[in-house]
Amino acid sequence: MPQRLAVIGGNPAGMSAASVAKRRDPDLEIVAFERGPYTSYAACGIPYLIGGDIKEVDDLVARSPDEHRRNGIDVRTRTEVVAIDLAARTLTARDEHTREETTEPFDQLLIATGAHATPPPIPGAEATEPARTLDAAEKLRAEVVRHGDHAVVIGAGYIGLEMAENLVQRGMQVTMVDRAPQVMGTLDPDMAEHVQDAAEGHGVKVLLNVDITEIVRDDAGRPTLVRTSEGDLQADHVVIGTGARPDVELASAAGLTVGETTGALVVDDHLRVPGHDGVFAAGDCVESHHRILDAPVNIQLGTHANQQGRIAGLNIAGGDARFPGVLGTAISRICRYEVARTGLTEREAAEAGIDAVAITTKARTRAEYYPGAGPIWVKLVAERGGGRLLGGQIVGTETAGKRIDTIATALWAGMTADDLQFVDLAYAPPVSPVRDPVLVAARALAGR
Amino acid sequence: MPQRLAVIGGNPAGMSAASVAKRRDPDLEIVAFERGPYTSYAACGIPYLIGGDIKEVDDLVARSPDEHRRNGIDVRTRTEVVAIDLAARTLTARDEHTREETTEPFDQLLIATGAHATPPPIPGAEATEPARTLDAAEKLRAEVVRHGDHAVVIGAGYIGLEMAENLVQRGMQVTMVDRAPQVMGTLDPDMAEHVQDAAEGHGVKVLLNVDITEIVRDDAGRPTLVRTSEGDLQADHVVIGTGARPDVELASAAGLTVGETTGALVVDDHLRVPGHDGVFAAGDCVESHHRILDAPVNIQLGTHANQQGRIAGLNIAGGDARFPGVLGTAISRICRYEVARTGLTEREAAEAGIDAVAITTKARTRAEYYPGAGPIWVKLVAERGGGRLLGGQIVGTETAGKRIDTIATALWAGMTADDLQFVDLAYAPPVSPVRDPVLVAARALAGR
Repeated sequence: MPQRLAVIGGNPAGMSAASVAKRRDPDLEIVAFERGPYTSYAACGIPYLIGGDIKEVDDLVARSPDEHRRNGIDVRTRTEVVAIDLAARTLTARDEHTREETTEPFDQLLIATGAHATPPPIPGAEATEPARTLDAAEKLRAEVVRHGDHAVVIGAGYIGLEMAENLVQRGMQVTMVDRAPQVMGTLDPDMAEHVQDAAEGHGVKVLLNVDITEIVRDDAGRPTLVRTSEGDLQADHVVIGTGARPDVELASAAGLTVGETTGALVVDDHLRVPGHDGVFAAGDCVESHHRILDAPVNIQLGTHANQQGRIAGLNIAGGDARFPGVLGTAISRICRYEVARTGLTEREAAEAGIDAVAITTKARTRAEYYPGAGPIWVKLVAERGGGRLLGGQIVGTETAGKRIDTIATALWAGMTADDLQFVDLAYAPPVSPVRDPVLVAARALAGR
Repeated sequence: MPQRLAVIGGNPAGMSAASVAKRRDPDLEIVAFERGPYTSYAACGIPYLIGGDIKEVDDLVARSPDEHRRNGIDVRTRTEVVAIDLAARTLTARDEHTREETTEPFDQLLIATGAHATPPPIPGAEATEPARTLDAAEKLRAEVVRHGDHAVVIGAGYIGLEMAENLVQRGMQVTMVDRAPQVMGTLDPDMAEHVQDAAEGHGVKVLLNVDITEIVRDDAGRPTLVRTSEGDLQADHVVIGTGARPDVELASAAGLTVGETTGALVVDDHLRVPGHDGVFAAGDCVESHHRILDAPVNIQLGTHANQQGRIAGLNIAGGDARFPGVLGTAISRICRYEVARTGLTEREAAEAGIDAVAITTKARTRAEYYPGAGPIWVKLVAERGGGRLLGGQIVGTETAGKRIDTIATALWAGMTADDLQFVDLAYAPPVSPVRDPVLVAARALAGR
């Protein structure tokens, strides 16, 4: 009798796993449940949909439910899984239209429930749907096109910044508000400053160290005003760009273990849930092993979700694939800058109790004399005394950001700054100065 | 009594060494001899000077003779060193204007004589000065601006291609001719084909497998016609973009050893000339250790010259710095593509007798749906059976090329394709697809 796999979550982690498993084991029966109407879409593209660089919602859909169905995966959209019974090996699924519940058996289970935004504890915030899903993004785009020209973005992290930039591109007057003293909390303050410069240069008003006390709405429920510790802000639109928490309620209720420090599901390096044979989890809802910290973390990135989904899929189909952990490498294009990080920031290293040294160097993205050369700041963090590299951050104009991959690869291999400074990197005047910016930083840090 | 260092060659290798040594040991007396009028210039920028992206010759000069003099280095331009007497520790320098010769003593010597183009053995070719120096580039630019609209470029390597592109940009009708069956001999044929497509798309006529039999000149010595095995080509300008050989005659005459396979000066990993205390050599004229081949090579690149110059300078000033070898990482922007390589090509691996496997994958430079996404081909070469990576090649649209650095770093660290496929690289829709093109190639090659 063919085995049956149930997948909870039609996002990239869940559907990668389903697709890989089906390809490896065509006899496997697969059913996938997704709350919303879309599958396998790139949530990372949402800000550009708001801004207009991306024209159609469908552009962000890598594979639609029908495409998955044609590949033999039984996709149930607008269907929420409301309970899992691991002993009986069944789950309860509820059709969002009919509200009907069905019991679905499974032999193997993949939990890819993702993460959900956590609206700040502000009166009026709960009515603002975070634009994390395509549905929500469509609604926001329609509203932005329809009326008003003042937007307030709550949260100055990378999602807030990307949204702010794209709202400016839509012709909005945008104010971004954060309680923190800096934008882009995933960078060290000295690097984040350049990002703030870029956002302000683009026309975003940045308010830091500011508390929001209320989002005021009209009778129709539309926002009109955001009250803050520094006064009122006109707000035809409010966008929430604060953090998201792993969606573990369902799995937790079924008895799965949630990591204490991460709030995410505990899995082993094969994406198996320990102690529950045939149960896997992948994507934003799980813990990953951080290779530098040597500790579990929950970092929500599409790259990790994709890789994990693929590995879970291989293992579900009887393979023996291992997910070797993460560095938390991330990049954003924010206003005129590319902003990237990998490994630990200086602050994170200190928080982890590591005796670290850090250095920031400034260079140019191309040969000094070549048209289009712009600034690039590279920050490197390493164990004091010439020890291994711990992390890197880059801010700079076009082409600056992906250079973080060089640092990520060096981190992955356990290199020191002294090792990295000599790596034979590519140079030609249109793409780099002869002294590569990453090598310049490594040289400055070597031996410290 | 202060020591005296003599530097032969005012190029980046020689002048980096001089500058670093002077900074480390201000008491060191330094005299530098340079045949031409310029010092420390970026020869890599010459094609863009011809094309007009770079406006002024001086833009390519990182540090002029006077700037070096202000730093305490006695620079003698238009002065050629014609003999070295290692026993007497003197050299003979000839002033190019007065033809006067002087004998100059030294305690330490740095040989940075670079490389010289080797005109093909064709009647009429010897009268064509290769545009390798700023003087020659200035002359060529003046001629191109002044008259004619047909140019023939001899040699379809990266210099020939860059020159051809920039001559088209000047409004020339450009034909590029090579005896070889492919452009860009430093790439494997399958990758070189994309470069040829780009060159032809840009308007360069590419003639391969074609022998040139004569360059015909008028009474004034100007080229008029290039005769080939496939007929005559109108040629108001002839540009030679064929290879260059290390300039070792002077050093060889003084008794220094020239590597048999490379034709370049033998140095140790401190850039010292073995058996000659206090004699150093760096840059295009020396052998380097190739980390993948574990053998000496002569690869002429500005990056190596700069690093070697710096390391020689540190050691001249009493330091203990080691040059850890090369991968031959190189990049060019050719027509609309960026073209890069590191390590060994498939052909080079075969020539070295290594049992290798290779794979080429095609991806996009950005998320499929993001404006400006273009093709990127990644080729990886590894030891058969899941062994270490041996090399990589990339061809693709803007931002494709510098991804070679990720592969170079992986090669440097001795990683396998299986290691590389999981490295946590950066993704955001404007800069990369979620499945990074380098990782896609690594995954396809893993375990083969």
